[in-house]
Amino acid sequence: MPDNTTSDIAVLGENQYGKAEVRLVRIERETPRHEITDFNVSSQLRGDLDAIHTDGDNAHCVATDSQKNTVYSLARDGVGTPEEFALRLGEHFTSSYDWISGGRWEIEKYSWVRIPTGTGEHDHSFVRSGTEVRTAVVQRDGDDVFVVAGLQDLTVLKSTASEFVGFTRDKYTTLAEATDRILATDVKARWRYTRTDLDFDAVFDDVRRLMLEQFATQHSYALQQTLYQMGIAVLEAHPEIAEIKFSMPNKHHFLVDLSPFGQDNPNVVFFAADRPYGLIEATVHRRDATPEPRAWASVTGFC
Amino acid sequence: MPDNTTSDIAVLGENQYGKAEVRLVRIERETPRHEITDFNVSSQLRGDLDAIHTDGDNAHCVATDSQKNTVYSLARDGVGTPEEFALRLGEHFTSSYDWISGGRWEIEKYSWVRIPTGTGEHDHSFVRSGTEVRTAVVQRDGDDVFVVAGLQDLTVLKSTASEFVGFTRDKYTTLAEATDRILATDVKARWRYTRTDLDFDAVFDDVRRLMLEQFATQHSYALQQTLYQMGIAVLEAHPEIAEIKFSMPNKHHFLVDLSPFGQDNPNVVFFAADRPYGLIEATVHRRDATPEPRAWASVTGFC
Amino acid sequence: MPDNTTSDIAVLGENQYGKAEVRLVRIERETPRHEITDFNVSSQLRGDLDAIHTDGDNAHCVATDSQKNTVYSLARDGVGTPEEFALRLGEHFTSSYDWISGGRWEIEKYSWVRIPTGTGEHDHSFVRSGTEVRTAVVQRDGDDVFVVAGLQDLTVLKSTASEFVGFTRDKYTTLAEATDRILATDVKARWRYTRTDLDFDAVFDDVRRLMLEQFATQHSYALQQTLYQMGIAVLEAHPEIAEIKFSMPNKHHFLVDLSPFGQDNPNVVFFAADRPYGLIEATVHRRDATPEPRAWASVTGFC
Amino acid sequence: MPDNTTSDIAVLGENQYGKAEVRLVRIERETPRHEITDFNVSSQLRGDLDAIHTDGDNAHCVATDSQKNTVYSLARDGVGTPEEFALRLGEHFTSSYDWISGGRWEIEKYSWVRIPTGTGEHDHSFVRSGTEVRTAVVQRDGDDVFVVAGLQDLTVLKSTASEFVGFTRDKYTTLAEATDRILATDVKARWRYTRTDLDFDAVFDDVRRLMLEQFATQHSYALQQTLYQMGIAVLEAHPEIAEIKFSMPNKHHFLVDLSPFGQDNPNVVFFAADRPYGLIEATVHRRDATPEPRAWASVTGFC
Repeated sequence: MPDNTTSDIAVLGENQYGKAEVRLVRIERETPRHEITDFNVSSQLRGDLDAIHTDGDNAHCVATDSQKNTVYSLARDGVGTPEEFALRLGEHFTSSYDWISGGRWEIEKYSWVRIPTGTGEHDHSFVRSGTEVRTAVVQRDGDDVFVVAGLQDLTVLKSTASEFVGFTRDKYTTLAEATDRILATDVKARWRYTRTDLDFDAVFDDVRRLMLEQFATQHSYALQQTLYQMGIAVLEAHPEIAEIKFSMPNKHHFLVDLSPFGQDNPNVVFFAADRPYGLIEATVHRRDATPEPRAWASVTGFC
Repeated sequence: MPDNTTSDIAVLGENQYGKAEVRLVRIERETPRHEITDFNVSSQLRGDLDAIHTDGDNAHCVATDSQKNTVYSLARDGVGTPEEFALRLGEHFTSSYDWISGGRWEIEKYSWVRIPTGTGEHDHSFVRSGTEVRTAVVQRDGDDVFVVAGLQDLTVLKSTASEFVGFTRDKYTTLAEATDRILATDVKARWRYTRTDLDFDAVFDDVRRLMLEQFATQHSYALQQTLYQMGIAVLEAHPEIAEIKFSMPNKHHFLVDLSPFGQDNPNVVFFAADRPYGLIEATVHRRDATPEPRAWASVTGFC
Repeated sequence: MPDNTTSDIAVLGENQYGKAEVRLVRIERETPRHEITDFNVSSQLRGDLDAIHTDGDNAHCVATDSQKNTVYSLARDGVGTPEEFALRLGEHFTSSYDWISGGRWEIEKYSWVRIPTGTGEHDHSFVRSGTEVRTAVVQRDGDDVFVVAGLQDLTVLKSTASEFVGFTRDKYTTLAEATDRILATDVKARWRYTRTDLDFDAVFDDVRRLMLEQFATQHSYALQQTLYQMGIAVLEAHPEIAEIKFSMPNKHHFLVDLSPFGQDNPNVVFFAADRPYGLIEATVHRRDATPEPRAWASVTGFC
Repeated sequence: MPDNTTSDIAVLGENQYGKAEVRLVRIERETPRHEITDFNVSSQLRGDLDAIHTDGDNAHCVATDSQKNTVYSLARDGVGTPEEFALRLGEHFTSSYDWISGGRWEIEKYSWVRIPTGTGEHDHSFVRSGTEVRTAVVQRDGDDVFVVAGLQDLTVLKSTASEFVGFTRDKYTTLAEATDRILATDVKARWRYTRTDLDFDAVFDDVRRLMLEQFATQHSYALQQTLYQMGIAVLEAHPEIAEIKFSMPNKHHFLVDLSPFGQDNPNVVFFAADRPYGLIEATVHRRDATPEPRAWASVTGFC
């Protein structure tokens, strides 16, 4: 072991460590009709970890390999929703090691549906459904527990009922106003719960439904405005949600100029562009919400 | 223009050039119930193109930019299925330029479904469905036309009814036999049509259905055997298909050894591995099929 | 324009918007010896933007397209270092629009080196060098300006002089102690400057040099301890840096057990694993540093 | 085991199977100055494998797990160049199992260089160098052995000495002629050796050098013409190479129109586009080369 590495001028600040992307698949097989749960689990611990950094003294190091083992061992008894399993992991680690005072447990959940056959949905054969990923981040700071649910890569498009007019015009403006345009985005959202005694699956499904329905049915004056309507709809329907954050690209679909070829193009043929793209980010929160920055620490990709 | 670049010892062989990944989105908007078609189109031309290479003489060069323009211009009149649009592109280029004798037109198609709302499926708002991509490759060599349809990234898993026993055991064998294992793969398949007067959407849907049903319902003795059964089912149902090629990873799901933690693991908790993975590739063809290597030139990723 | 969307219970919180990933390449061609600058620029604005969200009133919307135009227009006059160009963008936007009070400008810089030829390095032909990306994030909040420099995807490996022993052993521990192991990581680091009148290129080069030298020459007792030594070395050499954050995967290289094949394996043959991986994150800061959370807002992927 | 699956109309065609992407890192540590070899190895076997597909009879199945084990076991004795190790794998498998008549062994090699320190290049600490990947594909068909070497993701750009004029103009042409443009591509090349008793490292280095030098020093009239010059230079210098194939995107860098902002743009500010891109593919072969389609089977991504 090295001598203590000290510095007159520098010192360790915030830190966490763990095992990322533990790929866990669990099969329920009590009956012939199996169920599949497909998670990507990341565990990170916080606490009295200074000596690992400063002295290379690993006495307080719960090896990332052991964290991985723990994920699999706890999964033996069932996993439930991503929020529930992340809560269990947090409870386990903070109660098992007295120098671990908190941490961060993130789970991505991938969706599967049963393969349809001539005799109905199959009992034990599944097909991945959708590009969308459901997410859960649980963070603990001592006895304070924070739960942030979310989803990402939910790609949506509306082919009309979207306009963009009235924006600032100055010497850097070349964009024409559009009274009828394609609006497309990948919805990435995270929302913070104020309780942990929830039916997390039911709430998730309803938040997703509300966001899709708002996107579909509301006329859009700007992606910002559409985002805001999605956020309000979620907060009005779900008092257990304190705030919701969005990060949504404006995936440009440019109308192709066909006039060189003697053709018109009445909003029919579009070029779907890659980069650059607009990027719209905002939080919508309950008027009386108490800010909880600890819930959002290490929740990346949002303003 | 440079002098002719000649070499006593080297000469130009097979070549093609064009514009890759032209992102084309077309909206049908004759009625309030819009339809969306989302293609990724690649066009490559073959013919008398030697002077471009040897002399830098571009007289025979249909610029890749012009090929892109052509994709968009032809799309103004409607696109139909990916196979039909690729056939139109091939007909257009070979008939428009007498030095263009053939080429290759590939289309990826992305799927969208209508967003469900309280009042039914929405008229003009869509959500991307599935990770799967439908593909079509049309190749022309003079008047000979080849159509290869396909799909990829169709991810499937069966949680039982899969075994792997009886394989060779020698000094390099450490794998235990498995009488009950998870079988998972990403189906990547391409099949060759012998006719072009088909309802390409209907055939595609049925081929996909057959492959999924075989995967779901047949007991698997090896991924090779499952692949073969999928191929036979397709060829027996579809006389218009001469052959089908598969390239399928064996996406390993390893049973986690929980015995160090005092737990059993009766096929419940699995680790989904990334690399390495098995890779199974085979062609199943009609007994009386005439080989058509020109149909498969530049169709990559298959044996 | 819609009626004002109001909600008794929900309200807009933090927000920003702009154009992401504007790919800018600039060539200096005053002399035959050209220079290339290759940037990926993202601009996001903050300020009085509420009405865009709540009313769909775009009067305060500097279109993301206009932001893109501005990037290119300002680049006409030269770009300099990524930090300098991001500072110029921030100054421009906040001084041009009185309702824009701040924002975030991020630049990724890609490296090119001259192609070597028989007569020396070529004047105007370049080859991309390395997987590494240099980053700069400038944020403004009114007149307060924050500059965070960084790099990512700098992949390093040491084949010895790394051990991992003395960690916690309990029922979840199966990992053996290692007195000689491969240590590999992708260095991802961000550091905050306290001044803007710097030779940003020179400081960047020296920080990179110091991190590499520490990684190479110091015996490692844990990746945490190596990270910490890298941070101290940077802060001790560079008083203009207040703090540095790291997020580094432990890219596991597992010794392959060759004993089933009658072979030993004295640290010679390794399996490089993908997932899961360790993930080590920490901040090292100057003892007297004043925390500046506004400098780190929207700097993602660090604790 | 199932009954033999037979079909009156369908039959198994070409097939191969194996383990893909076995990540192998080998450290030479006989002296304090270590050497690192970093390979990604894929092994696929061909031969009498029909019963696996048709009967689920795995007696001839060398498990893909055993193939992986073999890669690591053979690596214990040293690996050498990617071509040499692939040749050894091919010799091993075809000589060990009398029903294995051939196969395909592909290796990707990643580059590392020593970390520079104040006292010179470090003995055992390395940093990844470059985005480029070296490749080797060895295929065997009975006693016939084919070796194809290559590289990919070698990104190059020339900021002048590139033009594109004189191309076909018709109703689909909107592109202006360019007498001075940026030319950029990712070189992807594969070349076939006629001998196996080569210093594969030395030849690889020289082929790479020649391609870069041609790209750098020759005026370009079209990417096709540049490709052709690169091919000729390789074949003229290396009689042991029968043919070389290229697949190179034309990575467009569009001059930004700054005139709306009152600025000129004399080839200074460019937009680097993603999609669509040109795609140029060609083979250059020795005049007297005997075609060897078996060498190119399963070498994907080339015409």
